[in-house]
Amino acid sequence: MTVQTPKIRLYVEHPLGQEQQVGLSREQAHYLFGVMRLTVGAQVALFNGTDGEWRAEVAEAGKRGGTLVCRAQTAPQTLPPDLWLLFAPIKKARTDFIVEKSVEMGARRILPVQTAFTNSERIRQDRLQAHATEAAEQCGATYVPEVADLTRLDRLLADWPEDRQLMFCDEARAGAATALPNTPGPWAILIGPEGGISDAERTKLHALPYAHAIALGPRILRADTAAVAALTIWQTTLGDWQ
Amino acid sequence: MTVQTPKIRLYVEHPLGQEQQVGLSREQAHYLFGVMRLTVGAQVALFNGTDGEWRAEVAEAGKRGGTLVCRAQTAPQTLPPDLWLLFAPIKKARTDFIVEKSVEMGARRILPVQTAFTNSERIRQDRLQAHATEAAEQCGATYVPEVADLTRLDRLLADWPEDRQLMFCDEARAGAATALPNTPGPWAILIGPEGGISDAERTKLHALPYAHAIALGPRILRADTAAVAALTIWQTTLGDWQ
Repeated sequence: MTVQTPKIRLYVEHPLGQEQQVGLSREQAHYLFGVMRLTVGAQVALFNGTDGEWRAEVAEAGKRGGTLVCRAQTAPQTLPPDLWLLFAPIKKARTDFIVEKSVEMGARRILPVQTAFTNSERIRQDRLQAHATEAAEQCGATYVPEVADLTRLDRLLADWPEDRQLMFCDEARAGAATALPNTPGPWAILIGPEGGISDAERTKLHALPYAHAIALGPRILRADTAAVAALTIWQTTLGDWQ
Repeated sequence: MTVQTPKIRLYVEHPLGQEQQVGLSREQAHYLFGVMRLTVGAQVALFNGTDGEWRAEVAEAGKRGGTLVCRAQTAPQTLPPDLWLLFAPIKKARTDFIVEKSVEMGARRILPVQTAFTNSERIRQDRLQAHATEAAEQCGATYVPEVADLTRLDRLLADWPEDRQLMFCDEARAGAATALPNTPGPWAILIGPEGGISDAERTKLHALPYAHAIALGPRILRADTAAVAALTIWQTTLGDWQ
């Protein structure tokens, strides 16, 4: 028997297991029954970040709620590699894209950071977290990365866990991509703002024993492009694309 | 003397050289003098795709036109590698992103293609070409890739130049990224639509001697993410990021 994954995938905060009943929130019921027009007997895929992916069947469909019943596990639980993606928030649409792309590309945690040249004083963490959830539903992941609150880069570096390597993209070293050291274990990638990192930040980063500068080719990349390119280099060198 | 590049970069269809005068179109004059508020004596960077980048000075500024004079060459002419990016047009915003990213990432030619699962019957070639020009201005390139008209993939493959290798992303082979063969010379990358390529297309592509399937990790990437990831792998393996 082939276990097929239904087309609609939904992240739920509920235990999943054989014949497990899962109650739906008003928003989820609206999406499944109002927007997607599902009826009793229809199938959706569920994941919760710990129990893998399950094929579930609509048992009750209402305007304000509903119940799904798990029928079969369709994918085991998998975690993305232990990789953080640090980025300086930019314009709304591109910030949304960076969050979406980080999830698709398999970052485990997303940390918006305030750098010297970051204009944003605040972010809408809840909105970015919802984007991350949507991206996980869409890309077939069984895990939703946490989007942290906005933190100052200097404070983050002051408390940095020393066993976590940090790859940062140094525009001043434009040209050939520098090879990433093949160090296993936890990693992070820092994507600066469109204005680049400041000279003080550059000096500080280069002095950190766990930080590794790489260049991303001879052209100047926008922050969202740089995020995907850096994640690709990391994933093919050290991550789950190997 | 340091030759600094001015912050505003403009693509012009005009020869560039020492003391060369460059007349501005109405749109260019509006942008420089109306939007960016430049006045006589201000400096901009010009490139035309053949003569490198030049620092030019505003000599005349009018509402409907103006003149710039080239003062010094600030970058030599460089071409991106001989790489085509074929993609199936998707929703407007993501199509725009793919064009923008292809330019930043150094594709030399951008070809929208109609595949079995492509919904678009037509594209606005002029709008996409304008996007490509803007991306080249922004990313520091001295070359603007041509955006071709929409072509059917089967017709393009029927006339394919056999010395051009083709890398395509096969979702059916999700998992580890397959290594790209280290074949020098002209290349192309094919990014399928969000619905993937059809079984018939897959069979046909796998049978072509110049086509190479690669996988882009264990998650399903959106077309715009896949474009940047595939371009990164190509550029670091065979292109100008080496």
